[in-house]
Amino acid sequence: MQYQDLIDACQTEWQAYTKHDFVTQLASGNLPKDSFLHYLKQDFLFLKQYARAYALAVYKANSLTDMRQALPTLNALLSSEISHHVSFCQDWGLSEAQMEQEREDFGTLAYTRYVLDAGMSGNLVDLYAALAPCSIGYAVIGEQISLDANTLWENNPYRSWIELYAGDDYQGHAKQGALYFNTLLANIDIKSERGQQLIEVFCTATRMEIAFWQQGLNATN
Amino acid sequence: MQYQDLIDACQTEWQAYTKHDFVTQLASGNLPKDSFLHYLKQDFLFLKQYARAYALAVYKANSLTDMRQALPTLNALLSSEISHHVSFCQDWGLSEAQMEQEREDFGTLAYTRYVLDAGMSGNLVDLYAALAPCSIGYAVIGEQISLDANTLWENNPYRSWIELYAGDDYQGHAKQGALYFNTLLANIDIKSERGQQLIEVFCTATRMEIAFWQQGLNATN
Amino acid sequence: MQYQDLIDACQTEWQAYTKHDFVTQLASGNLPKDSFLHYLKQDFLFLKQYARAYALAVYKANSLTDMRQALPTLNALLSSEISHHVSFCQDWGLSEAQMEQEREDFGTLAYTRYVLDAGMSGNLVDLYAALAPCSIGYAVIGEQISLDANTLWENNPYRSWIELYAGDDYQGHAKQGALYFNTLLANIDIKSERGQQLIEVFCTATRMEIAFWQQGLNATN
Amino acid sequence: MQYQDLIDACQTEWQAYTKHDFVTQLASGNLPKDSFLHYLKQDFLFLKQYARAYALAVYKANSLTDMRQALPTLNALLSSEISHHVSFCQDWGLSEAQMEQEREDFGTLAYTRYVLDAGMSGNLVDLYAALAPCSIGYAVIGEQISLDANTLWENNPYRSWIELYAGDDYQGHAKQGALYFNTLLANIDIKSERGQQLIEVFCTATRMEIAFWQQGLNATN
Repeated sequence: MQYQDLIDACQTEWQAYTKHDFVTQLASGNLPKDSFLHYLKQDFLFLKQYARAYALAVYKANSLTDMRQALPTLNALLSSEISHHVSFCQDWGLSEAQMEQEREDFGTLAYTRYVLDAGMSGNLVDLYAALAPCSIGYAVIGEQISLDANTLWENNPYRSWIELYAGDDYQGHAKQGALYFNTLLANIDIKSERGQQLIEVFCTATRMEIAFWQQGLNATN
Repeated sequence: MQYQDLIDACQTEWQAYTKHDFVTQLASGNLPKDSFLHYLKQDFLFLKQYARAYALAVYKANSLTDMRQALPTLNALLSSEISHHVSFCQDWGLSEAQMEQEREDFGTLAYTRYVLDAGMSGNLVDLYAALAPCSIGYAVIGEQISLDANTLWENNPYRSWIELYAGDDYQGHAKQGALYFNTLLANIDIKSERGQQLIEVFCTATRMEIAFWQQGLNATN
Repeated sequence: MQYQDLIDACQTEWQAYTKHDFVTQLASGNLPKDSFLHYLKQDFLFLKQYARAYALAVYKANSLTDMRQALPTLNALLSSEISHHVSFCQDWGLSEAQMEQEREDFGTLAYTRYVLDAGMSGNLVDLYAALAPCSIGYAVIGEQISLDANTLWENNPYRSWIELYAGDDYQGHAKQGALYFNTLLANIDIKSERGQQLIEVFCTATRMEIAFWQQGLNATN
Repeated sequence: MQYQDLIDACQTEWQAYTKHDFVTQLASGNLPKDSFLHYLKQDFLFLKQYARAYALAVYKANSLTDMRQALPTLNALLSSEISHHVSFCQDWGLSEAQMEQEREDFGTLAYTRYVLDAGMSGNLVDLYAALAPCSIGYAVIGEQISLDANTLWENNPYRSWIELYAGDDYQGHAKQGALYFNTLLANIDIKSERGQQLIEVFCTATRMEIAFWQQGLNATN
C-alpha cells in the first residue's frame, strides 16, 4: 500500500481536516486573531511534542538509513518551524519561555500523546502512520491555499504561516518524507490485519487534527 | 511530601473533579442514561489503557517489591473493574467485543495517552502521579457519595457503580495504593524542581478527569 | 510463518542452545554445584527482567485478548518460577533479598536488556520473537531431558529444576504460548523483510541463551 | 551531587576502565590490529545504539532546553564519530554497509541495551547516568593519552583515534555535556535512595566499558 491508500480509507475525516473552516478563514484572512493566536501557542506546544515523536523515530530505527531519515525533520522542527511560531508570537509580546509555560489544551494533549503512544507501543511504521496526517496534511493544505483564487495575499495577517507551509522548503521536505513513508508501507497489504491497524492509527490522528483546528476556532467564544 | 500535598496543590481542579455535576447527578440518580452509557463505554476503553499503564508500572519497577505492588491492580483492572462495565453494558445489549470496537472519544484519548506518556517519559513516580487522580479520586468520590445524605440508593440505576467504588474491595485497594504512593514520594520535597514536576503531572491528569466527566454530560446534547 | 520456521532458520544456534553441555551435565547430575548455583542466582535476576518483558507485552497489546494472553505468564513468573529459584537457593542459605542484591553478570544483562529493547523498539511480534527462545526452548529442553534414557532421576541434585520445566504446568503453558505466537506470525511471510527481521531477533536471543548457559559453566573456573 | 561523585563512588571500576590494557596498548601503538579492528567494528555498532540513546534523551526531555542539549550530540554521533570509524575501516576494505551487517558481540549488546533500558525505564537523569561513563570516560582517556609521555605519536596506527578523542572538538563537547549533567544532578543527594540508584546505573555502565575493551583484546585469541 501507499500513503494515498490511507487517505482514501479516511476520506470523511481527511476532507473535514484539510478543508476545515479554520483553514478557509486563515486563507481569506478572516480568521479571528484570538483563534489564530490560541492555535499558534498550542501549535508551539504541539511541535515540541511532535519533535519528541521524531526523536522516537530515531530511537525506533533499525538502520542508519532510517535514523538519518528522521534526523533532519527533528532538526527542522526544533529550528525553523518552532522559530516561526516564536517570532510570530513575539509580535504579540510573547517570549518563547512564556509560550512554553502555557497550559496544553485538551486537543493538544490528545493529539500529541496519541502519536507518541501509538509510536511507542507499535513499531516505526505505526509511528509514521500517526505522524503522517500532520506532515502530509499541512503540505496538502499549504499547496491548496496557495493555488486557491480566493486566498488573500495582500495584508493577510497570516501570510507568513501560508508561506511557511506552501513554501518550497516545507513542500520538498514533506514530499521526501511521504516517499519514504511509502517505502515503509510497500510490503503491507491494506486489506491485511496490519493494514487495518495502520488505517486505524492514521484515521485517529486525522480526527485529532480536526479537533485541533476546532480548538482554535473555539478560542474566540 | 505525601499524596495529600499534591491534592492541596491542585485544589481548584481537585474540587472541580470530585464534585463535578456528573458525580452529583449520578449519586442522586438524575444523570441522563445516555450520559452514563457514553461514560461507561468510554470508561471501559479508558480502563483498557489504564491497565496498560499498570503494566508499564511493572515494567518500570526496579525491585520485585515494586513489581508485586502493581500486579494486583493490573489483575483487578482486567477482571473485576472491566467486568463491572461489561456486565452493566450487557443490560443495554452491548457485548464486550462491541464495546471494544467503540471509537475512543477525545477526552478518553487525551487522558489515557497523557498518563502513558508521562509514565514512559518519566520514571515510576511520574507514572503513579499520573495514575493517582483516578485511583485516589474514585475512592474519595465513592466514599463521599456513600456518606452523602442526598444519595439515592433505592432504584438508583447507577447503584452498582456506587457500590463498586464505595465498596470495601475498591476502598481497601485504593488506600493501600495511596500508602504505597506515599513511600515513593517520601524523599521528594514538594518545593523542589522534582516536586513541581510531579504537581504538574498530577494537576494535568486531574484536569483530564474533569474533561472526562464533562464528556459524559455532553453526550446527551 | 510459524515459530518452527524461526527455529529452522537458526538451527546452528538452536542446537548449540538446547543441547549445551550445561543441559547435558544438569540432566546427568554431573553439573558442578557452583555452576548451577551461579546459574540459578543469575536466572533469578533474569526472571525478574523477563517478567518486566511480559509486562511490556501487556503494555504493547492492542486488544484485551492480547493483554489477557500475557498476564498469566507475568503472574506465573512472579510466583511459581521465581519461587522455585528462591526456595532452591534457600537451601544454600540465600534469601530472596540477598539474591536480588547479586550483581547481574554480563550474559544476564545482555540477554534481558536485548529482549526488552527489541520489544520496546519493535512491536508485540518482535517482543514475542525475543521471548520465544526462552519460553519455547525451556519446554523443549525439559521434555528432551525427561525422555532421555541417560537422565539421572534418583539423587540428581537438580531434579526439582527438571521437574519444573518437564512438568505439565510449564509444558502446557509453553505450548499454549507457542500456539498464540503462531497466530501472531500467521500473516507474515518468512521471506519478507519483516520475516527476516524476526529471524534476526529470534537468532540473537538464542545466541544469548547459549552465552547464558556458558556463563554458568564458566562460574566454576 | 556532581558527576565526579559518581566516579568517586565507582573508583575500582573507573580505574579498570580508564587504565585498561586496551587503552595502554593503543597509546603505545602495540595493540594488535585484529583487536583494534574488532573493537572498531563493534564500536561502530555501539555508536549506532548510542545514537538511539541520545534520541531517547530528546524524547525524554521536558523542556526545549533539554531537547536542544541532546540534539547536537545526536547529530555529532551520526556524522563525525561514526564517520571516523567508517573511514578508518575503509582502509581495511570494509564499507559502512558491511560494517552494519556485522553481528553485535555480547559486550556490545550488553552495554548498549543496558543503557537504553536504564534510560527508558528510568527518567532523563538515569539515562544520562548510563551515558556518562562513555561520554566522560572517553574524554578522560583521550586527555590522559595525549598527556602521557609514553604515548607514541609517530607511526602509531591508531593516531586518528587518539586525535579524535583528545581533540578540542570532542573534549569541548564532552566538557559541555558533563556540566549539563551536573545541573541535572545538582538537587540529588548522593546518599539518598535516588543517589544510590544513580550510582548503580553509573557503575553498571562502567563495568560494561571494561568488558567492551576486553572484548577487543580477546579478539586476537
